[in-house]
Amino acid sequence: MSQVCIATYRSYDDKADFHKKAQSIAVGLTVGSWTDLPEARKADMEKHLGKVLSVDVHELAGGDRYADIRIAYPDINFSRDIPALLVTIFGKLSMDGKIKLIDLDVSEQFQSAFPGPTFGLQGVRDALGIHDRPLLMSIFKSVVGHDLANLEDQFFKQALGGVDLIKDDEILFENPLTPLEKRVEVCMAAARRAQQETGQKLLYAVNLTGPTSQLADNARKAINAGANALLFNVLAYGYDVLHELSKDSSINVPIAAHPAMAGAFYPSPHYGIGASVLLGKLMRLAGADLVLFPSPYGSVVMPKEENLAVKDALLAPSDKLRTSFPVPSAGIHPGLVPLILRDFGTDVVVNAGGGIHGHPMGTAAGGQAFRIAIDASLNGTPLREAAAKPGNEPLQAAIDAWGVKE
Amino acid sequence: MSQVCIATYRSYDDKADFHKKAQSIAVGLTVGSWTDLPEARKADMEKHLGKVLSVDVHELAGGDRYADIRIAYPDINFSRDIPALLVTIFGKLSMDGKIKLIDLDVSEQFQSAFPGPTFGLQGVRDALGIHDRPLLMSIFKSVVGHDLANLEDQFFKQALGGVDLIKDDEILFENPLTPLEKRVEVCMAAARRAQQETGQKLLYAVNLTGPTSQLADNARKAINAGANALLFNVLAYGYDVLHELSKDSSINVPIAAHPAMAGAFYPSPHYGIGASVLLGKLMRLAGADLVLFPSPYGSVVMPKEENLAVKDALLAPSDKLRTSFPVPSAGIHPGLVPLILRDFGTDVVVNAGGGIHGHPMGTAAGGQAFRIAIDASLNGTPLREAAAKPGNEPLQAAIDAWGVKE
Repeated sequence: MSQVCIATYRSYDDKADFHKKAQSIAVGLTVGSWTDLPEARKADMEKHLGKVLSVDVHELAGGDRYADIRIAYPDINFSRDIPALLVTIFGKLSMDGKIKLIDLDVSEQFQSAFPGPTFGLQGVRDALGIHDRPLLMSIFKSVVGHDLANLEDQFFKQALGGVDLIKDDEILFENPLTPLEKRVEVCMAAARRAQQETGQKLLYAVNLTGPTSQLADNARKAINAGANALLFNVLAYGYDVLHELSKDSSINVPIAAHPAMAGAFYPSPHYGIGASVLLGKLMRLAGADLVLFPSPYGSVVMPKEENLAVKDALLAPSDKLRTSFPVPSAGIHPGLVPLILRDFGTDVVVNAGGGIHGHPMGTAAGGQAFRIAIDASLNGTPLREAAAKPGNEPLQAAIDAWGVKE
Repeated sequence: MSQVCIATYRSYDDKADFHKKAQSIAVGLTVGSWTDLPEARKADMEKHLGKVLSVDVHELAGGDRYADIRIAYPDINFSRDIPALLVTIFGKLSMDGKIKLIDLDVSEQFQSAFPGPTFGLQGVRDALGIHDRPLLMSIFKSVVGHDLANLEDQFFKQALGGVDLIKDDEILFENPLTPLEKRVEVCMAAARRAQQETGQKLLYAVNLTGPTSQLADNARKAINAGANALLFNVLAYGYDVLHELSKDSSINVPIAAHPAMAGAFYPSPHYGIGASVLLGKLMRLAGADLVLFPSPYGSVVMPKEENLAVKDALLAPSDKLRTSFPVPSAGIHPGLVPLILRDFGTDVVVNAGGGIHGHPMGTAAGGQAFRIAIDASLNGTPLREAAAKPGNEPLQAAIDAWGVKE
């Protein structure tokens, strides 16, 4: 069983000796000093010493230069929790010039303390009874300041469109108009009403908020009120909080991780934490069953290369951790479905807000347009051809409004 | 009592209409849409609507341009906790192009949910009985892999030098060689032994680590074992965790906030969260009694302007929140003391690691050199003059090794 966690950094420096810098990181973040140690002491300390695995220097046109530096950190130095890991590999170092944490491979030993997603991609599919197509998620729109009746109405319309998951607005917190338990009761009742028409189950990911120490209780309250999924702003609370919620056996519903605050970390080339670590590996390790991240298609964008790295991190084969469902989000309309499936495969959740609520024929038609587009894409039918078929007017209207990218 | 929290963003864009962008943020992160609302509905929703307070556009040479945008968010939209506030003002927005959260003023109403630092600057001074000079903190060096005897020896030598606070290495986690309670017992015993020689009290900030839900118990264990302060890697756990620890009446010792991971947020001009918010305002609001942050003098640097903004945020007069003790850290040696006092005033903790342990005459002399430098600076005596006096050899040796900046 491997017993070192491996961090990869991208370090920009006009003139540094990157090999020396790598060595100073490996020593400085573990035993502190090495060459000064008496030989006898070195024998004892060897097992604590960080090791430089590789230093790849890139000289750029114009004189800029950077190096990708891989360093192995012995597990023995830190407790098996994400805060300890992050503080070790990127605590002080994050403040030491232009340096970004771009990859992270935890050891089998470290990983063994993490059960990972309780449901994962397969569990979410099982819960919905849908194994043969991408899922469809819709997002509440403009619900701050609205009451239960309004919420229920909006929920029902979304559900009627045949969506598989509905997620709360991540900025909807505990409030007197739509308190957590009431919100769950009303929305799940609307889900049942819609199911009588659509024959379809759905998951409602209600936003889990409040003081950190009350989150588990709030989750149980939501579940007792009927919630069958949770939405959680992981980065506003910390990965360890997600980890503890996820491994709590009384919180027995899938957890969808929202990427709120992620843009404070990943977009700079010089600083922060790469998206595949931030929204990929660490979210899965901490137990997110679904992970939302900015799509490469919309206004809130992430370059496609990074997108696919996040997806790969969520879906990488593992005999220990279940996979997490990738949910590329923002700027999605039905005409993008063929592209999404080409980029992400069928193990993806197609997630839309404006692309459902803004549909010219209304919210329910918005969901239907997506479902038609998903079925057509799976069958290899061009969307314009599918849209022309009787009954498929919602897709035609969506294409008229937003176009197609195939 | 004010009831809106005001966020200031710096937004870079080559061609955007910044006024339009500001308006879309103010509406998008609150009510979602506004112009489409029926007039009757607007009356109800007005109290939830974000408002643009100002847009200052700066056109730079070379065609770059940015705007500083101030937006007021009604408290009514979010619960009174830092995760809800951050997700509202910078959750989705953080991912929306080149935008950085550079300032934040919470409302009196929001702030009223936060008692702030329990001890604060004055409480730390009271605990030590020292009111007339900057404090001196020293940092353990290279303690990973060391046993209790070694730790005790290093602690004792630091204490003998007349330091006021000793902080754990932030990468020292719960471990079999130096478990939390044993570590506290051994170090506090060393503190008492040193006190018999120096006549001086000191605070030992032991590193509080472990799973989030066990932190409060671990803190109580440490306190029961004799700990009189705590060190906490706030950003690895989340501000709300600090807030909950700080307001827990059973955790009745000062908490020092370590800036580990801060470099993932503040250094980029285009992304992230400014240092004065990240390490200043939010740390104080969440209840940090002392706040460490990178000094402008050493290898781990922060521009002086940002440094002073952090300090100002920690010390700004308030009739509601106690002030937090500023602890500029990294690269500090005795020859910098006059500069530190000029930049930060006397309400500062002078904090050193290598500048104490690396002293040519040893660790205890390292602390003494700082104490002599602090006294000389307060008296307006140039350090070289003070160093020449009988008994002040430790300062002379430090100056010989590292020089003076006055």
